[in-house]
Amino acid sequence: MNGGHNRLRLVRAGIDTYQEPVVYMHRDCDVCRAEGFTALTRVLVHSGGRELVATLNVVTDDRFGLDVAALSEAAWNALQPAPEAWAVFSHPEPPASAPALRAKVFGHRLGEADFLGLMRDTVDNRLSDIELAAFVTACAGGRLDHDETIGLTRAMIAVGQRITWGGGPVLDKHCVGGLPGNRTTPIVVAIVAAAGHRIPKTSSRAITSPAGTADTMEVMAPVTLDLATMRRVVEREGGCVVWGGNVRLSPADDVLIRVGRPLDFDSDGQLVASVLSKKAAAGSSHVLIDIPVGPTAKVRSEDAADLLEARLLATAHALDLTLSVLRTDGRQPVGFGIGPALEARDVLSVLRGDAGAPPDLRERALDVAAALLDIAPGAAPGQGKATARSLLDSGAALRKFLAICEAQGGFSEPSMSAHSQPVLAARSGVVQGIDNRRLANIAKLAGAPRSASAGIDCRLRLGGAIQAGEPLFHVHARSPGELEYALEYAAEHPDIFAIAATP
Amino acid sequence: MNGGHNRLRLVRAGIDTYQEPVVYMHRDCDVCRAEGFTALTRVLVHSGGRELVATLNVVTDDRFGLDVAALSEAAWNALQPAPEAWAVFSHPEPPASAPALRAKVFGHRLGEADFLGLMRDTVDNRLSDIELAAFVTACAGGRLDHDETIGLTRAMIAVGQRITWGGGPVLDKHCVGGLPGNRTTPIVVAIVAAAGHRIPKTSSRAITSPAGTADTMEVMAPVTLDLATMRRVVEREGGCVVWGGNVRLSPADDVLIRVGRPLDFDSDGQLVASVLSKKAAAGSSHVLIDIPVGPTAKVRSEDAADLLEARLLATAHALDLTLSVLRTDGRQPVGFGIGPALEARDVLSVLRGDAGAPPDLRERALDVAAALLDIAPGAAPGQGKATARSLLDSGAALRKFLAICEAQGGFSEPSMSAHSQPVLAARSGVVQGIDNRRLANIAKLAGAPRSASAGIDCRLRLGGAIQAGEPLFHVHARSPGELEYALEYAAEHPDIFAIAATP
Repeated sequence: MNGGHNRLRLVRAGIDTYQEPVVYMHRDCDVCRAEGFTALTRVLVHSGGRELVATLNVVTDDRFGLDVAALSEAAWNALQPAPEAWAVFSHPEPPASAPALRAKVFGHRLGEADFLGLMRDTVDNRLSDIELAAFVTACAGGRLDHDETIGLTRAMIAVGQRITWGGGPVLDKHCVGGLPGNRTTPIVVAIVAAAGHRIPKTSSRAITSPAGTADTMEVMAPVTLDLATMRRVVEREGGCVVWGGNVRLSPADDVLIRVGRPLDFDSDGQLVASVLSKKAAAGSSHVLIDIPVGPTAKVRSEDAADLLEARLLATAHALDLTLSVLRTDGRQPVGFGIGPALEARDVLSVLRGDAGAPPDLRERALDVAAALLDIAPGAAPGQGKATARSLLDSGAALRKFLAICEAQGGFSEPSMSAHSQPVLAARSGVVQGIDNRRLANIAKLAGAPRSASAGIDCRLRLGGAIQAGEPLFHVHARSPGELEYALEYAAEHPDIFAIAATP
Repeated sequence: MNGGHNRLRLVRAGIDTYQEPVVYMHRDCDVCRAEGFTALTRVLVHSGGRELVATLNVVTDDRFGLDVAALSEAAWNALQPAPEAWAVFSHPEPPASAPALRAKVFGHRLGEADFLGLMRDTVDNRLSDIELAAFVTACAGGRLDHDETIGLTRAMIAVGQRITWGGGPVLDKHCVGGLPGNRTTPIVVAIVAAAGHRIPKTSSRAITSPAGTADTMEVMAPVTLDLATMRRVVEREGGCVVWGGNVRLSPADDVLIRVGRPLDFDSDGQLVASVLSKKAAAGSSHVLIDIPVGPTAKVRSEDAADLLEARLLATAHALDLTLSVLRTDGRQPVGFGIGPALEARDVLSVLRGDAGAPPDLRERALDVAAALLDIAPGAAPGQGKATARSLLDSGAALRKFLAICEAQGGFSEPSMSAHSQPVLAARSGVVQGIDNRRLANIAKLAGAPRSASAGIDCRLRLGGAIQAGEPLFHVHARSPGELEYALEYAAEHPDIFAIAATP
């Protein structure tokens, strides 16, 4: 057709397959016939000096033509073909890391070189989603030991870029999550940066929760910054809160999170590798980890927290990071809002010192900022809390936060959703327990984090009294369909708030 | 747009995504906006009394229009919409079996009800490929115990149809596989049916091998029969060799095989459930299992064979099946050909009594047929071999085989490939070992089983002498690209035949 061997012209399919690169070829095209490609074959695409492994979908009608290969958005963005570009198609080599994957599934320990091969193939898209799902599964349920965790962490760091900040300490914090609404990060970053420290915070989007810090921050300022812009923000303001996925710190972790998200498995080893690979890649030297502990939080018991803490400390030691752990109350949500915009509203009201600001979010943010200030080099231990409170109450933290938002591209006030409805208490009494997971499910069903304004507004706390017919919480959604869907789930689970009648 | 709620008109996308149903919707269509659907959302499609869970791909150009949802081939075939049909789209409920999946991944034992929920969701397409991959992984590496294996087997049987044959024994055989070219089944079925027994054999297509029995049989006769046609064939001729996937015996197993194929994990529990669910669903009462044992076969040691045999016997007992195991030599290929057409050629030459027929394939088929005849009710033990040999040598088995082919839709002579090239020995000596897995890889890279005529022709056996420059084997392929690809792999692995110099 064009004189070449296994060549087709590239066009944009106009189909969004999320992060998975897909190539669409006609069933009868020369390439399919010569190479024996059929649906779901993995194909190697070479074009203009770039290459990409993509999944083949076979086109059976005349939509695209016989001499054309159409690329999904992910494939198009990865290859960035010139206008009228051609590509050469072939069978990719089997992934070099397949034997390591198989070994892990069969319960063998992996070494650092094995993990390096797996993470290299992960970022190069040499492993299919099915293979990645197998890897995530094989690492779940305590199947990574200490040394493997260190190996996986080092491998994740090695396949991404690593920021260097010149001399001086670089502070960072991370919350293990699982606690709806617990959005201390923007407040902590503002306080710590206002104290004169460097705190270049990269955050993730939601994995299995209704909002990640990046989702919440994005309601108030752009978070999709490239590395150079992030560096300028931190050099100017001392701190930032940006989406880690865009600066490609630990890009392998981002892929594992994408595949792991629908599975909703937690794994200590993968969790530690995820958190610490990002911290090391961000150039951090002093890290505080907040572990909320509670029956429906991510970490459910002090025993589980002990195991996780030991894993974190051993891995940090191997990476030469100073790390401290703060355990916090994980029995109930923190702040009123659950969902990006509702949480952003709470963050701003704490920073602004509003009389109606959620007191638990304020106290939690002060505790975390204090613990981080206390491990910074040159700190007078125990002084962190007073410093943090003074920076918050003086308005210095608010000014710093707004300056960071401006540096990231401009501050926006969060806007609220169009559709809202209360869920009412069926009985009167006192709140004895809160099922955080189911509460988070309602926020997710309402559309969070996809719809920034969706979620839950909940002011009821453990020990609080309520009368039958009063609202337990309000559900917010962008569309009536999502609102209805979330309310149905709430109706099916009337026990999210355990309410005992008062005597 | 049409007065309805969340409705779109259905069109055929003309895109083959293999078995995964995909629905294509415009990013700005009412349904995406109202329901908050984004790429890879799983959506419930209702149309004309049928429903289906599909994966959403978001269309970003004007290819299909705003009031239209386009269906991939798998989705179109599942829903079979009337012309101009509309569908209603909504969020599916989370799969009911998600907690059981999670429990298994975290190492908990599952009960029969858990497996039933998982297999029900599997056949109803309620589990995504990522979730299915997690399930396959969680069951690999000895993570299913005896009782779980029985539970999984019963669950697989329960979610499919089950054939009843009226009174009398129903014989069946299965080879655990892993041995290239070991295509005894068509010969065994012909002998056993010629002996007057009922043997309704359903076979699978290749999972991780260059050919499954269904792939090989398809070269000689149609194998994609529905249940009613299969029943007519067996009632007329006593036996058949059809593709099990089409009669939907144990359809859950077919889905697990599709997802498991690229992973290439073996699991005793899943293997036993796969084999015995199909046997029970086929209405079999007396089953012979052939286990080839060898260092590069699927079962690599007598110890591994012991474990598998115990698992098979315990599960068969629970299902009320009479089961016997025959262990065979799994050190080297059986027959000359590896690949559908090349194996079919060997099968026919054995049945025809050709002087050049592969003697090992003939002996192996006689052994398996004999062992099966010996466990049939009313057999005089030890007489099976003589009976089998007499039916083969008299031509009765050949006549029966051709009659079965005719009943299945008509016999065809296998046709050979256009492209073939030898791989030459680098040194002279005697064959000490054969790497069956790498040999099979070459056949797969040459295009088998996708290209029926692709594969390997290999007459060299353990203990055989060869001179440097003589062919070790010939590679056959449908296209020059595939031939080249297979030859490259062969050149990179010159040690597939371990050749020791003669003293």
